[in-house]
Amino acid sequence: MSDRIRLVDAATISALARGCAILGTGGGGEVYTGSLIARQAIGDHGPVRVVTLDELPDDGLLLPLGMIGAPTIAVEKIPNGGEAIRFRHHLERLTGKTAVAVMSSEIGGSNGLLPVAWAARLGLPLLDADSMGRAFPEVHQVAQHVAGHHPELIVLTDERGSVVTLQVVSGAWAEAVARAVTVAFGGSAAMADYVMTVGEARGAVIVGSVSRAIAIGRAVIGSREPVATLCETVGAFRLLEGKVVDVERTTSGGFARGSVVVEGVGVDVGRALRLEIQNENLVAFEDGRVRASVPDLICVIDAVTADAIATEHVRYGQRVAVIAFPCDPIWRTARGIETAGPRAFGYEFDYETVEALVAAG
Amino acid sequence: MSDRIRLVDAATISALARGCAILGTGGGGEVYTGSLIARQAIGDHGPVRVVTLDELPDDGLLLPLGMIGAPTIAVEKIPNGGEAIRFRHHLERLTGKTAVAVMSSEIGGSNGLLPVAWAARLGLPLLDADSMGRAFPEVHQVAQHVAGHHPELIVLTDERGSVVTLQVVSGAWAEAVARAVTVAFGGSAAMADYVMTVGEARGAVIVGSVSRAIAIGRAVIGSREPVATLCETVGAFRLLEGKVVDVERTTSGGFARGSVVVEGVGVDVGRALRLEIQNENLVAFEDGRVRASVPDLICVIDAVTADAIATEHVRYGQRVAVIAFPCDPIWRTARGIETAGPRAFGYEFDYETVEALVAAG
Repeated sequence: MSDRIRLVDAATISALARGCAILGTGGGGEVYTGSLIARQAIGDHGPVRVVTLDELPDDGLLLPLGMIGAPTIAVEKIPNGGEAIRFRHHLERLTGKTAVAVMSSEIGGSNGLLPVAWAARLGLPLLDADSMGRAFPEVHQVAQHVAGHHPELIVLTDERGSVVTLQVVSGAWAEAVARAVTVAFGGSAAMADYVMTVGEARGAVIVGSVSRAIAIGRAVIGSREPVATLCETVGAFRLLEGKVVDVERTTSGGFARGSVVVEGVGVDVGRALRLEIQNENLVAFEDGRVRASVPDLICVIDAVTADAIATEHVRYGQRVAVIAFPCDPIWRTARGIETAGPRAFGYEFDYETVEALVAAG
Repeated sequence: MSDRIRLVDAATISALARGCAILGTGGGGEVYTGSLIARQAIGDHGPVRVVTLDELPDDGLLLPLGMIGAPTIAVEKIPNGGEAIRFRHHLERLTGKTAVAVMSSEIGGSNGLLPVAWAARLGLPLLDADSMGRAFPEVHQVAQHVAGHHPELIVLTDERGSVVTLQVVSGAWAEAVARAVTVAFGGSAAMADYVMTVGEARGAVIVGSVSRAIAIGRAVIGSREPVATLCETVGAFRLLEGKVVDVERTTSGGFARGSVVVEGVGVDVGRALRLEIQNENLVAFEDGRVRASVPDLICVIDAVTADAIATEHVRYGQRVAVIAFPCDPIWRTARGIETAGPRAFGYEFDYETVEALVAAG
């Protein structure tokens, strides 16, 4: 669906940000700050080349980077750029390999933009791929885990210059320990996770993510009917158009958790959707019935501009549409559903695709 | 006061355990399990040579090892021996230096015994020194911190084989992050902290700790009046003899916290002491007045045998004596008091030496 992108320059950032916000499904960090940081880095260091795995040497080190923690905290506690240099230095020393590219750990939200800044600062290309094809709250909810890889090397760093290296025995264990460190760091930290070589990354990452985000952004920016265009571009179903009437949000244990209620207006008057949130929008309920759920993507978008509204920015009175669209096929495999389906988040129901749920009416 | 010890063999363990329990001031982990583990390791690998800094090469790597966490948890979640091998392998790889000796991070409690087991298993000598001269609850409450060293390298490992490496910017930060990892690990973990070379350790550790613990143990074991002998050996004041009438103990945030009330009997009838605990005995109050406090050592000992009773083993009805004795002089420096005096634990009073408090009556 998307043209292959070969360069991210200042002019590309707006489209990338729009697309990342959509793929963030409410999480990954709001894109405004990330856009500013990416633009600044491109201004200082020049545009960032976007490459595919085929263009990189097999034994080169891939740096999958992003922020971990509650987006409600990340919006105030922003990275200062030094992370990238610490990550490269530390990981090259630990592995004895040379870093050849930066990758977004998650393309969703600010985490799709900050790696542009880090790549610019390091003078490295950005890989046209990510670990999720969206945003997910937990460390092991990545394509590498679904592909059977262990998180052999995870590094966290904070704005003070602390570096914590995890070599743990499983993905679930990585989540527990990385989350504890993140909370000790103040609720948000920069992380390199599932660090691997280019060769190991083949078949274990989601390819084309940067191109896809930019394509989504460009389609919406150029459109006179952005909501319709967005739905067409990503293959989304419009679940409801309405008004935010209730927002419940707490930040605890390194996550933003809560719920949002949207009451229908216009053709949807008399209906209401309730979204449940753990950094990202997890499930959309209507009268107790599931209308869409993880791993499919659920977005709260501005009813007019189709701008995605991040978890930490949803507020009473906003006029929004709630849309949902299919996740990357890897999340619909048995191991994908086990890793990031409803039961992985403690829900007591089985995953059904958004297509099936919509068809069932 | 103490003869220099040159070998720890199975026969030495009883005396070492008795002495470590006293120097643990209630914490550092009860010594029974640690004794069994040390005896087993000596049985499997032979006795452990005890050396001084002068016998080691300046650029050799020192492995200061111990358990971190709540002793109430450590009593059930014991190390399996594999820690030592992981620590050496990991630290030699990270630093490019060769490990030449194991040191107890804290001589108090089980943490004075487990390093014997680890040294035996690694075939390394044990340094006749430690980082505290007693036990303290927090990571940065060590002689290295008082000497102005940063915790450049801290490694934690759990029984599953996970390894977490901290390179943080201050001692207080090390405590926060290491504690968070410990809690994620289940409340107890093995730790190598303030890892440094032999040269760096000169003037930054407390020397003679192993010899001292064994000397204390031997004096008490051979005595017909163990309480009096113990007090004479360590220079302790007997604060009260009585019965434990109240024990409050909770395990949270990676610490055992609580209080113990001892009501006087015999000559002390009508009096009562209240001890406040954070892993170790921190302060002894009588009628709201401070009778002794950190960094001086406060011990609850069996009224007949003079065996120290660990925090996690104090219980209603025990007949005990409460004794207090002076800490190593480094803890009475301005930086020592700042690091581990009453205010470091949130108390609103200044440190006074136990000698001064006893003299004031």
